[in-house]
Amino acid sequence: MTGKVITCRAAVAWGPNQPLVMEEVLVDPPQKMEVRIKILFTSICHTDLTAWKGENEAQRVYPRIFGHEASGVVESVGEGVEDMKEGDHVVPIFNGECGDCVYCKSEKSNLCQRFRVNPFKSVMASDGKCRFSTKQGNPIFHFLNTSTFSEYTVLDSACVVKIDSQAPLKEMTLLSCGASTGLGAAWNTANVQAGSSVAVFGLGAVGLAVVEGARTRRASKIIGIDINPNKLLKGQTMGITDFLNPKDLRKAVHEKIREMTNGGVDYSFECAGNLEVIREAFLSTHDGWGLTVVLGIHPTPRTLPLHPMELFDGRRITGSVFGDFKGKTQLPHFAEECMRQEVKLDEFITHELPFSEINEAFQLLVGGKSLRCLLHL
Amino acid sequence: MTGKVITCRAAVAWGPNQPLVMEEVLVDPPQKMEVRIKILFTSICHTDLTAWKGENEAQRVYPRIFGHEASGVVESVGEGVEDMKEGDHVVPIFNGECGDCVYCKSEKSNLCQRFRVNPFKSVMASDGKCRFSTKQGNPIFHFLNTSTFSEYTVLDSACVVKIDSQAPLKEMTLLSCGASTGLGAAWNTANVQAGSSVAVFGLGAVGLAVVEGARTRRASKIIGIDINPNKLLKGQTMGITDFLNPKDLRKAVHEKIREMTNGGVDYSFECAGNLEVIREAFLSTHDGWGLTVVLGIHPTPRTLPLHPMELFDGRRITGSVFGDFKGKTQLPHFAEECMRQEVKLDEFITHELPFSEINEAFQLLVGGKSLRCLLHL
Repeated sequence: MTGKVITCRAAVAWGPNQPLVMEEVLVDPPQKMEVRIKILFTSICHTDLTAWKGENEAQRVYPRIFGHEASGVVESVGEGVEDMKEGDHVVPIFNGECGDCVYCKSEKSNLCQRFRVNPFKSVMASDGKCRFSTKQGNPIFHFLNTSTFSEYTVLDSACVVKIDSQAPLKEMTLLSCGASTGLGAAWNTANVQAGSSVAVFGLGAVGLAVVEGARTRRASKIIGIDINPNKLLKGQTMGITDFLNPKDLRKAVHEKIREMTNGGVDYSFECAGNLEVIREAFLSTHDGWGLTVVLGIHPTPRTLPLHPMELFDGRRITGSVFGDFKGKTQLPHFAEECMRQEVKLDEFITHELPFSEINEAFQLLVGGKSLRCLLHL
Repeated sequence: MTGKVITCRAAVAWGPNQPLVMEEVLVDPPQKMEVRIKILFTSICHTDLTAWKGENEAQRVYPRIFGHEASGVVESVGEGVEDMKEGDHVVPIFNGECGDCVYCKSEKSNLCQRFRVNPFKSVMASDGKCRFSTKQGNPIFHFLNTSTFSEYTVLDSACVVKIDSQAPLKEMTLLSCGASTGLGAAWNTANVQAGSSVAVFGLGAVGLAVVEGARTRRASKIIGIDINPNKLLKGQTMGITDFLNPKDLRKAVHEKIREMTNGGVDYSFECAGNLEVIREAFLSTHDGWGLTVVLGIHPTPRTLPLHPMELFDGRRITGSVFGDFKGKTQLPHFAEECMRQEVKLDEFITHELPFSEINEAFQLLVGGKSLRCLLHL
């Protein structure tokens, strides 16, 4: 089908909070430096959920195809694409890597000038147009450089990572977002050391990926914190050594953690999207060297609940986007570690459904029942 | 005088905001692991000023001997002190280094468990008593582990750094606080790289020490920001390449700085003690890798004016105490760099007065007329 329009099924969003509609869409051929891929698996992340709800008016652009966690195979490539060819196994990344900008050339950042994460972007970077259209010829908008809720999608090549063809594609889906974000926060952002202590606030998929990152780095103490008692078992399966439910404590979580760790953990991770949790995570680290990594999304007008003088106790705080991975450069190596079973991602896939049942998969995530529900296309 | 009480002159504070009184005091011999030193030079820093004003009630302990920037000679040492002897040239440090605690043994922190900076502490760590007393036998309290506004003072050996006897003692006074705090913030905390860009908010002694730190690291652009236009000349002498007075700008300082630096500086330093300045300093750095170092003291109940989502732009913020120097381990090397004229500290000493005119020296600092007024004892 190289060079031709493909007609395929996609789950289209027509309005905020409305069930996605499975329908036939047209997918244009990839333009210069673009890649068209056949999606084999996709899953749903909270960022899809937030955009789907459309609570932020600036994100209300319809019709639109959501989705950014996926894996698939290259169907065809546009002019100039040399690092991929038809048949290659790939994962899309919402935080692209053009390789040429000042950010890509810096060792200190994984934010690409053209393809950094931007939930408000809804068209292709090259020409500001859509590659999707309805059968009537009207444009269907893109999401997060990826739009994976479709049997075929077009991405800029900066947002597609080629991985080893032997890597398990189901698990590879998680490299698109959740696993990379969490494991990368532990490996790259915090650089967790062997024998160190870690506290993870919020044991959703990202939090558990942080746990896996800390486990593979041989942290000696990994404390999981969640107000949902059902997270205990899953957390233990993934490697937490201790579990705290703030609702069961008579003191502040950070006080309990300091008692458990002789002054505080070396690293804490906020994966809950809650400002009070940021403060607890910050105070639960050891003064002098503790580092708090913020991963949660905070849709609040309020500012950080930290006093400037608290910075003088030697505790640090930082954000982390996409686990500080430079996607195209580093994810192929990450995929190899998964192949060697050094990193285990299968525990994250708690449900599997056919693509046609995508709305059920959304409800599983809304209800906190799934970590990741894998959709088969 | 080893083992005997010394009678000498000291500038004693008897109440908040009251002129210091020059009077005869008794100085006990050093106890185990303590050192008694003869102060030759001392200067005044804003931390002395704040404590002297006594705005924080918890700091109101009188009579008391302030002062923490100084240089001098060891008069005698207590039992167990092996790294110093009578006649050694030394500088006191308010942020001690015992060498034995978990912090001192960590490479990540310069906060000593027993001797970290603590403006509320007013007695010796070993026995909770004072080494100073009035002629009537009443105790006179200590300040910041140092109390240098006295011809003789007793410190724990963890708070005394031996330096090369050839090092210029006048300039060495600045190693006790201002120079170490500012240069160390550039060298250790930020680790400013050659060719990088730097913005320094507030050109007092600490801010200018940051400038000197950035200059010696060969930063290519050093922007000084101050609302006092008189800081321009001194700033240029010290090495700033650009000067901004926010009062002369029609836009926010960070916008102007981003224009001047193609997106923002690599490092910014807040030396003004103002929350709005923290925000300007933060936003003036380049996204992706910018680092803001907070040095100012912020006696406000308000919290950091930063939104958690702003951490995801790759800008970082951190505090810095005593320039992240481990005093006893690292300051001797710093002193050698001063001897080799690689670092120039003489520009910081803008005034010199006899010890007896200490109240005039306070007024010079209050009025913003001096960077450092060196008092000769």
